[in-house]
Amino acid sequence: MKTDTLQNDLTQKNFISEDLGENIFPNPLQLPDNFFAEKPERILYQNTTCCHGKMPDQTFSFGSPGPYKHLYFDPSKVNVGIVTCGGLCPGLNDVIRSISYSCINSYKTKNVYGFRHGFAGLTRSHESPPMILTSEIVSNIHEQGGTILGSSRGAQSIEEMVDTLVSYDISILFVIGGDGSQHASTKIAAEIKKRNLKISIIGIPKTIDNDIAFVYKTFGFDTAVEHARKAINAAHVEAIGSFNGIGLVKLMGRDAGFIAAHASLASGNVNICLIPEEPFDLEQILKRIQSRLVKRDHLVIVVAEGVGQDILVDEESKRFDESGNPKLKDIGLFLKQKICTYLEKRHIPHTLKYIDPSYMIRSTKANAIDSSFCLQLGMHAVHAGMAGKTNTLIGFWNQHFCLVPIQLSLSDKKRVDINDAMWRAVLEITQG
Amino acid sequence: MKTDTLQNDLTQKNFISEDLGENIFPNPLQLPDNFFAEKPERILYQNTTCCHGKMPDQTFSFGSPGPYKHLYFDPSKVNVGIVTCGGLCPGLNDVIRSISYSCINSYKTKNVYGFRHGFAGLTRSHESPPMILTSEIVSNIHEQGGTILGSSRGAQSIEEMVDTLVSYDISILFVIGGDGSQHASTKIAAEIKKRNLKISIIGIPKTIDNDIAFVYKTFGFDTAVEHARKAINAAHVEAIGSFNGIGLVKLMGRDAGFIAAHASLASGNVNICLIPEEPFDLEQILKRIQSRLVKRDHLVIVVAEGVGQDILVDEESKRFDESGNPKLKDIGLFLKQKICTYLEKRHIPHTLKYIDPSYMIRSTKANAIDSSFCLQLGMHAVHAGMAGKTNTLIGFWNQHFCLVPIQLSLSDKKRVDINDAMWRAVLEITQG
Amino acid sequence: MKTDTLQNDLTQKNFISEDLGENIFPNPLQLPDNFFAEKPERILYQNTTCCHGKMPDQTFSFGSPGPYKHLYFDPSKVNVGIVTCGGLCPGLNDVIRSISYSCINSYKTKNVYGFRHGFAGLTRSHESPPMILTSEIVSNIHEQGGTILGSSRGAQSIEEMVDTLVSYDISILFVIGGDGSQHASTKIAAEIKKRNLKISIIGIPKTIDNDIAFVYKTFGFDTAVEHARKAINAAHVEAIGSFNGIGLVKLMGRDAGFIAAHASLASGNVNICLIPEEPFDLEQILKRIQSRLVKRDHLVIVVAEGVGQDILVDEESKRFDESGNPKLKDIGLFLKQKICTYLEKRHIPHTLKYIDPSYMIRSTKANAIDSSFCLQLGMHAVHAGMAGKTNTLIGFWNQHFCLVPIQLSLSDKKRVDINDAMWRAVLEITQG
Amino acid sequence: MKTDTLQNDLTQKNFISEDLGENIFPNPLQLPDNFFAEKPERILYQNTTCCHGKMPDQTFSFGSPGPYKHLYFDPSKVNVGIVTCGGLCPGLNDVIRSISYSCINSYKTKNVYGFRHGFAGLTRSHESPPMILTSEIVSNIHEQGGTILGSSRGAQSIEEMVDTLVSYDISILFVIGGDGSQHASTKIAAEIKKRNLKISIIGIPKTIDNDIAFVYKTFGFDTAVEHARKAINAAHVEAIGSFNGIGLVKLMGRDAGFIAAHASLASGNVNICLIPEEPFDLEQILKRIQSRLVKRDHLVIVVAEGVGQDILVDEESKRFDESGNPKLKDIGLFLKQKICTYLEKRHIPHTLKYIDPSYMIRSTKANAIDSSFCLQLGMHAVHAGMAGKTNTLIGFWNQHFCLVPIQLSLSDKKRVDINDAMWRAVLEITQG
Repeated sequence: MKTDTLQNDLTQKNFISEDLGENIFPNPLQLPDNFFAEKPERILYQNTTCCHGKMPDQTFSFGSPGPYKHLYFDPSKVNVGIVTCGGLCPGLNDVIRSISYSCINSYKTKNVYGFRHGFAGLTRSHESPPMILTSEIVSNIHEQGGTILGSSRGAQSIEEMVDTLVSYDISILFVIGGDGSQHASTKIAAEIKKRNLKISIIGIPKTIDNDIAFVYKTFGFDTAVEHARKAINAAHVEAIGSFNGIGLVKLMGRDAGFIAAHASLASGNVNICLIPEEPFDLEQILKRIQSRLVKRDHLVIVVAEGVGQDILVDEESKRFDESGNPKLKDIGLFLKQKICTYLEKRHIPHTLKYIDPSYMIRSTKANAIDSSFCLQLGMHAVHAGMAGKTNTLIGFWNQHFCLVPIQLSLSDKKRVDINDAMWRAVLEITQG
Repeated sequence: MKTDTLQNDLTQKNFISEDLGENIFPNPLQLPDNFFAEKPERILYQNTTCCHGKMPDQTFSFGSPGPYKHLYFDPSKVNVGIVTCGGLCPGLNDVIRSISYSCINSYKTKNVYGFRHGFAGLTRSHESPPMILTSEIVSNIHEQGGTILGSSRGAQSIEEMVDTLVSYDISILFVIGGDGSQHASTKIAAEIKKRNLKISIIGIPKTIDNDIAFVYKTFGFDTAVEHARKAINAAHVEAIGSFNGIGLVKLMGRDAGFIAAHASLASGNVNICLIPEEPFDLEQILKRIQSRLVKRDHLVIVVAEGVGQDILVDEESKRFDESGNPKLKDIGLFLKQKICTYLEKRHIPHTLKYIDPSYMIRSTKANAIDSSFCLQLGMHAVHAGMAGKTNTLIGFWNQHFCLVPIQLSLSDKKRVDINDAMWRAVLEITQG
Repeated sequence: MKTDTLQNDLTQKNFISEDLGENIFPNPLQLPDNFFAEKPERILYQNTTCCHGKMPDQTFSFGSPGPYKHLYFDPSKVNVGIVTCGGLCPGLNDVIRSISYSCINSYKTKNVYGFRHGFAGLTRSHESPPMILTSEIVSNIHEQGGTILGSSRGAQSIEEMVDTLVSYDISILFVIGGDGSQHASTKIAAEIKKRNLKISIIGIPKTIDNDIAFVYKTFGFDTAVEHARKAINAAHVEAIGSFNGIGLVKLMGRDAGFIAAHASLASGNVNICLIPEEPFDLEQILKRIQSRLVKRDHLVIVVAEGVGQDILVDEESKRFDESGNPKLKDIGLFLKQKICTYLEKRHIPHTLKYIDPSYMIRSTKANAIDSSFCLQLGMHAVHAGMAGKTNTLIGFWNQHFCLVPIQLSLSDKKRVDINDAMWRAVLEITQG
Repeated sequence: MKTDTLQNDLTQKNFISEDLGENIFPNPLQLPDNFFAEKPERILYQNTTCCHGKMPDQTFSFGSPGPYKHLYFDPSKVNVGIVTCGGLCPGLNDVIRSISYSCINSYKTKNVYGFRHGFAGLTRSHESPPMILTSEIVSNIHEQGGTILGSSRGAQSIEEMVDTLVSYDISILFVIGGDGSQHASTKIAAEIKKRNLKISIIGIPKTIDNDIAFVYKTFGFDTAVEHARKAINAAHVEAIGSFNGIGLVKLMGRDAGFIAAHASLASGNVNICLIPEEPFDLEQILKRIQSRLVKRDHLVIVVAEGVGQDILVDEESKRFDESGNPKLKDIGLFLKQKICTYLEKRHIPHTLKYIDPSYMIRSTKANAIDSSFCLQLGMHAVHAGMAGKTNTLIGFWNQHFCLVPIQLSLSDKKRVDINDAMWRAVLEITQG
């Protein structure tokens, strides 16, 4: 990985200004002195000895988050903005609540604006003005899934978004979103720099698929695995409830199969687990299904939504080009049809139940460990923003929260390593 | 309701033999004497004064279940069979466990056979022989949803089924199933009578939709409402998570909308609830959706699966006759398409999320009240069978378990009364 | 039961005025006409044929709740008050929400006052003024257990409470509470009558123990059984986790053992279930424990909190009179000590785990069926109050919501019938 | 930390024999070759740059677990034993199941013996013989909490335990237990070495408190935090349900407050969180309680069971020495008494509800992430044992499973660092 130079380069740029100069304000947090680490240690990226006995690289590391003794912003004069982008994920409300509480109660900022419906709220704030988040409003929101701010997908004008930040006198914008949204974050930060504004952009990585590079764990993932397991267990109950019963579950995972893999491990009832990282061989899968039915008369298949997208496109162009029905890109329905056709041709009676639990999973409230994680994430984000960091994600690596330059994170992808122990465990338990 | 004569007629026939004669065995249950009600009171059907001031009918009533002091069968020589038919329903394993425990531990019967995969297991017992259910096997099965016996749909030869009962020397067959299966139960009982066999057929009404006549509540219904509420709440979270977000949930309910109605009441977040009992007016629904979005910018729709089946057939024959795609009979997908088309035509931006949680609901384990109910159901079934009752359902009416002649139950249908207080409550809360 | 005359007598008094006279206002509910039952049928109390063949009594019946076409109050000029009294119970917030929604959205009343901390809030409203409940405030409260109004126990001055009602210009007071609180309700109603005021008192029966007479089911009970089962299952897991492991669970049930009984049935893992209705024989229980340990090496005991209170008092006065330690009245700790002493004397190694889950049970949110029930309860309460009913409980009997005169309800007690089928089922499954 | 030399020293000793010599058997796992890492990379202990800019130590690292291409044991001739020791912890059955499945299905070993009731089962195997664990027996055990093997505390004769291993011809013993049990593991391993036996001892760290050194996370911890949050939320609901309501929750945590801290973060409703690592100042706590009641009229206190044990001993010797009541060592009851006395003296009305949910937490089944973790733990344990590792724990550090010499792990303690970010987050949210 040639990210070292990139990182070193980026680190320099992750402050609004290299010369804090006059901009030094005392931190109002009432905490013992030891909690303010002015020169914090850094979190090492590497965590194993190199394969060839080489010493690991010590220069690739992440900044340690605050709180900081000296702030770039005067908290009492600060307005902050929060925006939630992309699909729902358990814990969004926890993060909104944590940022709001930290700003209101700990830093005593002026206003916390919750922009509505993702980046759209930053361009249409006249139609759909931001909520002013108070302690009362956010106090119980973590008890419910989703985001009280609403979300949306899709690009917006960077210029207009920065105009809105200016018009609301925002000093720090917290962008809770995935790869696409953080890509927009870097563009917003660039526009801010171009205009020479004093606005910090802090990213909170949000991906239920857990596929953001240099971030070991994203919030909501554990919760998603919990509910994915329930769907798998439902499929298992359905499968054993019929002769040659087949339970087929499609789980989230556009590019990364972490949810499918962990939920399969957690359930212990999965016989075939398909993830985007592993090449998709339809014929071989159909044969495994047949042989399993002969042997044990029921089976459970888990498939991540991103599996076989290339094949689906092919199939579609060959066989369904007149319809252009987007449902045909649904690997779950595709597999359902293929399996049934295959078994019918061989006169194998069967009952297939297809379960697509995605909306029911992503809309749940965060489980306790995710809630604890979100609360800490939100606090770290506020500490970083107040200190004048910008263009930075709050990550979690090697057991520590850390600061990851957004561009560094965007330079790579996190995927299931199909050579590692976790995936091998999946293969081992799905052999039977 | 002209069911009185029918009932009186039927009651006489719900014993294997009217002359117990030599067939009197003492009940081995070690219970105080007061529990053996030789001449039990009967459960009245009527529970309100008549509309016109007429006194309610006292002759329409249900038998009270055992245990009975004198048994028709000698428990120590009895083999019993259990079969689970039709779709999954929370509590099936609880009922299997309760019947098994009561037979094994209380009545000390010889064998409890669990026939596999519904009535199919009574015609294909050579291929797929019944399980012999022991205390060890059933001890924890109530912790899991579904049925350890498997289930199936569809008709089987009545003669072959009775042959199988004879070949396994079954004295009592417990049929856990819905209307269709209980219809088969009566045919089996008729064939048994024709052959002059001493076999009792006891029905345990199983319908997640809660639509069996003369049975106030069927097991699994409360549990289904619990999980249906979760799906509705997911839809609500999704709806508020988008601008003009629409959450659409299809729930179980072929002919009766009890689950949809109660889950809507329980959730408190539903704006439109559609059930089969209420005429389906697509145009009016689309207008309500539009006006709600204008007013509140999000909404939740619940639709029972049986809604609008006539319209669907029409639509299909008019517009999709070439495909014959069975998915078009899916009211959920149909509504989804209609709503989106309607809003697009009017240039109303929106995001619709469709949730079909059926398999995840019906495969859950029973909640506590359902488990308590199932345990009692199973015991009553065994008491009734041991006493030589036959062609009888174990019902629950006016706060008592009771014996309902199967044919009486099949003579009517239970539906949501769209003039009563419960449905009015739904209308009241979905006005907004 | 000699309640007929009482009831007939009471029924007459359950209107604020027998002469509605000028006080007739149209009902603003936008519902089809069929929903307004001006002369509703009544709900029969009796539901079985009499033991001796006698025809059941038709005169003992309960009024059917509204909505009513003609109201006693002009909704637009009405202030209502809500008060929650006594211990927490799942569903309190659901009832508060339902009453508030019905008043605000359906009847468009002026204000809904939520008095704080039970009846205390009606005497100390200057210190702790009532909340004004709005749609926004109550919209999500059913997602959380407890009561947003707070509760309290203990008597208050009836005169002062009526003074407060007058000073807030309350037309209807909804008292959500148990026997004790409803007793106070009747006194408040009497004082109101004495002063010739036009204030309706509507009781919503609240008892997690489900022990209010003429009310088949009280809200929160099903939820309580659900969580009680969890505690029992924890005890079971602990019991099998040790050699001669004993799990001892104390459940709610001061005078009635419904929770203990149903949770035992639901769990299926209970070996001894003790309820207040069954005489308590310590020696026999200790012997059963010993013999079960010898046979199966683990056991689970469930005890309702009200069990053995007479013995405890005796034991206390005999043996612990010097300490006066109130913990000795805890039947759970008492049994724990007795069991351990008994087994130690006999040199039987054992591990006893004592679980008292009461606060964790009663503070949970309502399950779906309870939520549906609470929503309907609240609506019926509002309909009744608006029509000028007073001194009346909203009950549920023979499958219908109904109006039960409070004094009638207080004239009797609901207890587990230790001769009926439910308790026999408990005995049957705990034999082993 | 002077553990480097210790570790290097220990690493050498963590094979049954340094000279595998004749003892090389091929691994029967049907996995692609890449999964067998003959010379695996090692997991670095250090994960931050040193405080003083010093380079981190590269020599302190942990071995990477298997599977291994070459085994020390011939799987087909191997009997393995499993024993679960100490208190219950969510996931025990998952680990038992995983080890059993891996041995039976992947390695095709002879027998898997489950010794009963902890180490006691290794000395009393004649009275209470081990279970022979089959696929059927373990197939659903992860659906239930606790351990099907039973557990116990307390020391047993090392010699007798080794005698039992010999008599059952055990090649690998898996010890699932905490510090105390793993201490016994090292003694068993020493006795084995002394007798020159070929038996591997593999430890699986089990501590619900998550306090084992060099192991970032132990199984069951996340699940415990989940259920601890429920108890806290119950306390919160109780607190707001009364005037000056106080919810007091005692959580697990003898020496380490991780559960209390994370559950407080997850709940977001805690006002005072007490852990053993932070000095306990009763007077200051009582003052905070009073001032919070004045300000907000309710509060929630979480206390880990290990808090203030020194003070308790003092208090006891000073004030309660005549009774010797072991309950006085209960910090929860102690605090309850102190708080009530303090407030009563100051005439501050209040209602305190004390919740001790420990048994209900530790007996639950593992949540999904814990189940996934347990399944991998069990597999790694089997791989390590088959390869002839011994005296080794399966740990998890810096995002990797790893091998930790048991003696190394016993040489240190994991505690909440009261200077780090996690504890600061707790202080920050409990300020209010």
